[in-house]
Amino acid sequence: VPNPIITLTTDFGEASHYVAAMKGVILAINPAVRIVDLSHRIPPQDLRHADHFLAGAIPYFPIGAIHVVVVDPGVGTERSLLYVELGGHRLLLPDNGCWTTLAAKVGATPLVRQLSEPRFWRQPVSNTFHGRDILAPTAGHLSLGLDPALLGPTQTAWLKLEQPRPSRGELEITGTVMFIDDFGNLVTNISESMLEAWSDRSLEFRVGDHVASRRVLSYGEAQPGQLVSLIGSSQLLEFAVVNGNAARSLQVTVGTPVKVFAGQDPSKRIS
Amino acid sequence: VPNPIITLTTDFGEASHYVAAMKGVILAINPAVRIVDLSHRIPPQDLRHADHFLAGAIPYFPIGAIHVVVVDPGVGTERSLLYVELGGHRLLLPDNGCWTTLAAKVGATPLVRQLSEPRFWRQPVSNTFHGRDILAPTAGHLSLGLDPALLGPTQTAWLKLEQPRPSRGELEITGTVMFIDDFGNLVTNISESMLEAWSDRSLEFRVGDHVASRRVLSYGEAQPGQLVSLIGSSQLLEFAVVNGNAARSLQVTVGTPVKVFAGQDPSKRIS
Amino acid sequence: VPNPIITLTTDFGEASHYVAAMKGVILAINPAVRIVDLSHRIPPQDLRHADHFLAGAIPYFPIGAIHVVVVDPGVGTERSLLYVELGGHRLLLPDNGCWTTLAAKVGATPLVRQLSEPRFWRQPVSNTFHGRDILAPTAGHLSLGLDPALLGPTQTAWLKLEQPRPSRGELEITGTVMFIDDFGNLVTNISESMLEAWSDRSLEFRVGDHVASRRVLSYGEAQPGQLVSLIGSSQLLEFAVVNGNAARSLQVTVGTPVKVFAGQDPSKRIS
Repeated sequence: VPNPIITLTTDFGEASHYVAAMKGVILAINPAVRIVDLSHRIPPQDLRHADHFLAGAIPYFPIGAIHVVVVDPGVGTERSLLYVELGGHRLLLPDNGCWTTLAAKVGATPLVRQLSEPRFWRQPVSNTFHGRDILAPTAGHLSLGLDPALLGPTQTAWLKLEQPRPSRGELEITGTVMFIDDFGNLVTNISESMLEAWSDRSLEFRVGDHVASRRVLSYGEAQPGQLVSLIGSSQLLEFAVVNGNAARSLQVTVGTPVKVFAGQDPSKRIS
Repeated sequence: VPNPIITLTTDFGEASHYVAAMKGVILAINPAVRIVDLSHRIPPQDLRHADHFLAGAIPYFPIGAIHVVVVDPGVGTERSLLYVELGGHRLLLPDNGCWTTLAAKVGATPLVRQLSEPRFWRQPVSNTFHGRDILAPTAGHLSLGLDPALLGPTQTAWLKLEQPRPSRGELEITGTVMFIDDFGNLVTNISESMLEAWSDRSLEFRVGDHVASRRVLSYGEAQPGQLVSLIGSSQLLEFAVVNGNAARSLQVTVGTPVKVFAGQDPSKRIS
Repeated sequence: VPNPIITLTTDFGEASHYVAAMKGVILAINPAVRIVDLSHRIPPQDLRHADHFLAGAIPYFPIGAIHVVVVDPGVGTERSLLYVELGGHRLLLPDNGCWTTLAAKVGATPLVRQLSEPRFWRQPVSNTFHGRDILAPTAGHLSLGLDPALLGPTQTAWLKLEQPRPSRGELEITGTVMFIDDFGNLVTNISESMLEAWSDRSLEFRVGDHVASRRVLSYGEAQPGQLVSLIGSSQLLEFAVVNGNAARSLQVTVGTPVKVFAGQDPSKRIS
C-alpha cells in the first residue's frame, strides 16, 4: 500500500498530547502513512454528535482509507473495539453505536470484527487510552497491508444509537434539532424528502418558540440577522441566523423541538 | 504532479464535518495529494480577517501549491467562484475580495478565471456548501494536472476589499486595529516604513485610550503585564501586553483607533 | 530522506496566520515533507504545559522525525535556539526548559547545539517570529539531509524547568495538579509507582477540598458525575468527573494541592 491514508476523529481537543501520541504510534509502525485530521473537537463523549459527523464526512473519502474514531466514554470497560468494513470504507472504533447513521446512509452490509489480538497492540495497554494503545497501532498495521481477518473474530451484533425520529401528522411534521455546527446553524432530523409532498403549499417553520421569517435556498438571500430555514448540505432542514449564530442568539440546544406546519390549501398562505 | 499540495483555509471550525467532507472529496479525486490545514478558525464570514490571514501566509508557500479558501458569506447567491494565479501562487476562492492585501503584497498581475464548468464539480451541487461541491473537486482535478484554462473564462474584474487606510498629519499618524491574533496582540495598519521618517524623534503610541508604556523590539524586553508597542513579524505596528492578552485586558476590538504622536523636537521626549 | 516528517507544536492558536506561515516556509525549502500538527493550543507562553505535552507525545514518534516546538516567551531576547538529539528524537526549540520532563523520560544523554548559522535562516530575521524565520527553515534544511553539525556549536548547559515534586510522609503523599486536559481531567505529579508500596491499604485521594468518591481503573466504571481517582495513561494519578469536567465543576487549576492518605492498618478503611 503506497502512501496509505489514516484519518483521525476524536473528542480529545488539542491542548493535550493525546492526539499527538496517537500520531506518533501510527507513524512509528508505518512511517509512510499520511495522517488526515478530521476533527478533534467532537464534544466530549458526545456519541450523537460523532454519529452525525461521521455520516457527513466518511462517505466522501476514497475506498481503502482507514478511519480511526475515538469517542469512547466506555474506555476500559467491557465494550468491544471494532474493525468495520462498510461499502469499502474501513473504520476502527469502540462498539458504541457512533456509526449508526453512517451505516444507514452507506446502505451496505457491514463486515464487523472484534479486535482481540493483543499482538497488534501497544504493550502495556493502559486502562484509559485505547486510542493510543489499541486503535492507533491496529490502524498502523492495517495500513501496512495486514489482513483484517487476523484482527479478531467476526461479530454479528453491535450497538446502534437510537436517534429521535421525526413524526408526521396530516398538516404537521414534528422533529428535533440534532446537530449544531460551528456557525450556530441548527440542523434538524427532518429531511428534504419529507417536505416534498408539500412542495405546493405554504409552510411555517418553527424551532422552539421561534418562527423562521423566510425559507431560502442559501444564507445569502436574506438580510443579516434574519432567522431563515433552508435545506442544508446534508439534505436536512436547518435553521440559521444570516451572518449570525442561531444557537447562541435563540438559546437553542440539541434536542429543541422543531415543527413544520403546512397550509391546508395550497393557494392560501398561513398567517 | 507527484505529491501535490492543497492547502485549506476556512471559517468552518472543527466540531462540524465540513472540513472533513472537503478533505474526502479531494482525496477521492487524487489520493496522492498532501492536504495542509492553514486554518479553520477564521471568524465566521470575516473577510477582513481572511484577507489579513492570507497575506501573512500564502507568500511563504512554494509556487504551485493550490490554496482553497472558503470564507463565503455569499454562498448560493450570484457571486462567482474564482481560480486565481498570482505570481505563481494558485488560489480557489469566492469572489469576495479576501485576497486584496495578498495581491498588493505579491505585486504581480493576477490571472483570474471564473469557475464555470460543472463537469469538474461534484453533483448535485448544494446551495450552501460550494467548498465541498465546487472548490474541493476543482482543486483535486488541478492537482492531477488539469489545465486551468479549462475551468472557465478569464475574468477581468473582481471584488476588492476596502480596508481603512492610515492617515498622516505633520506630527501624528492615525490608524486602526486591523487584526487581533490568538495572543490578543493588536496588529494595526500602520507600517514600519511610515515610522521611518521619525526615527530620531520620541514617539507616543496610543490604542483607544491606552498609551504604550514602552516601545520595544520584542515582547521579552519588557515586564509581564506592561503594554508595549513594537513592529511585529508582518512589519506592522502592533500593541501587546507582555505575557498577557491585550485585546482582553484593554477591551480593544478590530476597528479601535490607533494614534502615533511624534515629539516636535528630536531632542525632547514627550511626557 | 524520502518523505521526511516534521511535527509542529506551538502556542499560536489557529485564528492567526503564524502556523500557516511556518508550514509555507518549510514546504518552500522541502516540498516533499509531510507536516504533522501536534498541537497549536499550548496555552500562551505556558512552558509547564508544553513540558508535559512533549513528554506525553514525542516518545511515541519514530526516530528521525524532526519536532519543531515554538512556545517562546523570550523570542527576540538573548535566549538561544537549540537543536537537540535525544535518544534519536530530534528537536528544534528555544532554550527555555520545555523539554525537561521529556529528557528525564527518554533517559538518554542529549546532544545539544546552538543555532548560530544565519545561512540556514530566512532573511531578514524578525524580532518576534523566530518560528518562521529560524526554526522552520532549519527544520526544512535538516529534512533535506543537512548535517546537524553545521547548525552551530555544541552547547553543554541548557535551561531546565523546575517542576514541583511530590513529597512523601509516613502515611501521606503531597503533590500538585500539573496538567489539565481538554476533558477537564486533573493530572497530578504523583506517579503510579509511588502508590505501589501501599497496594494493600485503603487510600483516600483529595484534590483541593474534594475527596474522590472512588478509585477506579477507568472512567466508565463509575456513575456520571462522580469524582474518581485513577492512574491515567501517563502512569500518573489523576482525578476525573465521569462524563463531566472536573476542572470546571470543582474550580481546580494547575497548582492545586493533592493529597493521598493511607490507612494505618491495611485491614481498616479510612472513614
